[in-house]
Amino acid sequence: MKMVTFLYPGMTTLDLVGPHEVLSRLPDANVIRVAETAGPVVTDTGLQLVADAAISDVDSADILLMPGGTNTWPLLGNDKVLDWVRKIDAGSQWTTSVCTGSLVYAAAGLLSGHQATTHWATLDVLREYGAEPVSNRVVVSGRYVSAAGVSAGIDMGLTLAARIAGDDFAQLLQLAIEYDPQPPFDAGSPDKVPHLKDAVIQLLSPPG
Amino acid sequence: MKMVTFLYPGMTTLDLVGPHEVLSRLPDANVIRVAETAGPVVTDTGLQLVADAAISDVDSADILLMPGGTNTWPLLGNDKVLDWVRKIDAGSQWTTSVCTGSLVYAAAGLLSGHQATTHWATLDVLREYGAEPVSNRVVVSGRYVSAAGVSAGIDMGLTLAARIAGDDFAQLLQLAIEYDPQPPFDAGSPDKVPHLKDAVIQLLSPPG
Repeated sequence: MKMVTFLYPGMTTLDLVGPHEVLSRLPDANVIRVAETAGPVVTDTGLQLVADAAISDVDSADILLMPGGTNTWPLLGNDKVLDWVRKIDAGSQWTTSVCTGSLVYAAAGLLSGHQATTHWATLDVLREYGAEPVSNRVVVSGRYVSAAGVSAGIDMGLTLAARIAGDDFAQLLQLAIEYDPQPPFDAGSPDKVPHLKDAVIQLLSPPG
Repeated sequence: MKMVTFLYPGMTTLDLVGPHEVLSRLPDANVIRVAETAGPVVTDTGLQLVADAAISDVDSADILLMPGGTNTWPLLGNDKVLDWVRKIDAGSQWTTSVCTGSLVYAAAGLLSGHQATTHWATLDVLREYGAEPVSNRVVVSGRYVSAAGVSAGIDMGLTLAARIAGDDFAQLLQLAIEYDPQPPFDAGSPDKVPHLKDAVIQLLSPPG
């Protein structure tokens, strides 16, 4: 099972690492991390991840994973990346995203008529590209599997692991990463803390 | 606020990235990722993270973060790393760990008489080093803050963010990363799926 995940400057690290932590532990997983060029990629928190290969070196995947972040916007007009995404998607079993990663698929024209989700602050953008936004944690529509913002990628990874390897194996992975979440606050969705929405949107806005 | 996190070969990526995603977004955060030598470090799922500096170049931190993983064991006898950990801890405000990262502090002699936690499969090891194991999600004992396995680092990061920047700011960060967890199964702790414990221990055992 070949999983290919795309890295880009300013992406959000946890978007990638949540599902990567789960899916890379599936039996026979072969994970390749790619970027426009191979080598280090700096994420939005300054962490450097290394891309194993350039997108020009990879032309197929069983699972495609697109992380999001506050710097996804340039990708929506990047024809080289969008063309590559269309090519990989054409042969994939699962085309998956976390957070604003789904906007890249939408911009590539892949989500027309599909339900999908993204970070709560960007749901309207999906509609602009002809997708049907749904504010669920994980949305499955055909082979498109999208997760809500950042941390939702863990839930998406486990959901997909169950589809691929069965419920028992997904539960085994959940126990391995001790995913028994106990957040100290109940503040993880905008309906729970509506007074914080504007401050978060400001925090996440790209500079300038 | 200077946060220093230690990287090492075979560490678990999410152990680092969970709290990093939260704490690096605190006001005035300055995060430095270090390893025994600067440069790429390969984690237990094959992802390469880049260490910005060598431990010999960093001699203080306000927050020290130690990730865990199935390859923590060699560190417990690595005097160069243990000496550096003792030095950083002596001046830190918060000495924090995720998963088996707390075993490194225990091996350095820092947790004698302290309550601490780790991955559920390794709680007994804490006792061998004179700490008092507690199977809570996050344990605070003086300036030592430890999280249970892997994904618990997100809960630890938010707990610590609240101590440093207040409950409102921690909630803002929780909403930013949309941390409203909805695991597809209730299988994240050993008391919930005791029949899977042995299989997980086998999965997590280092080869050979």
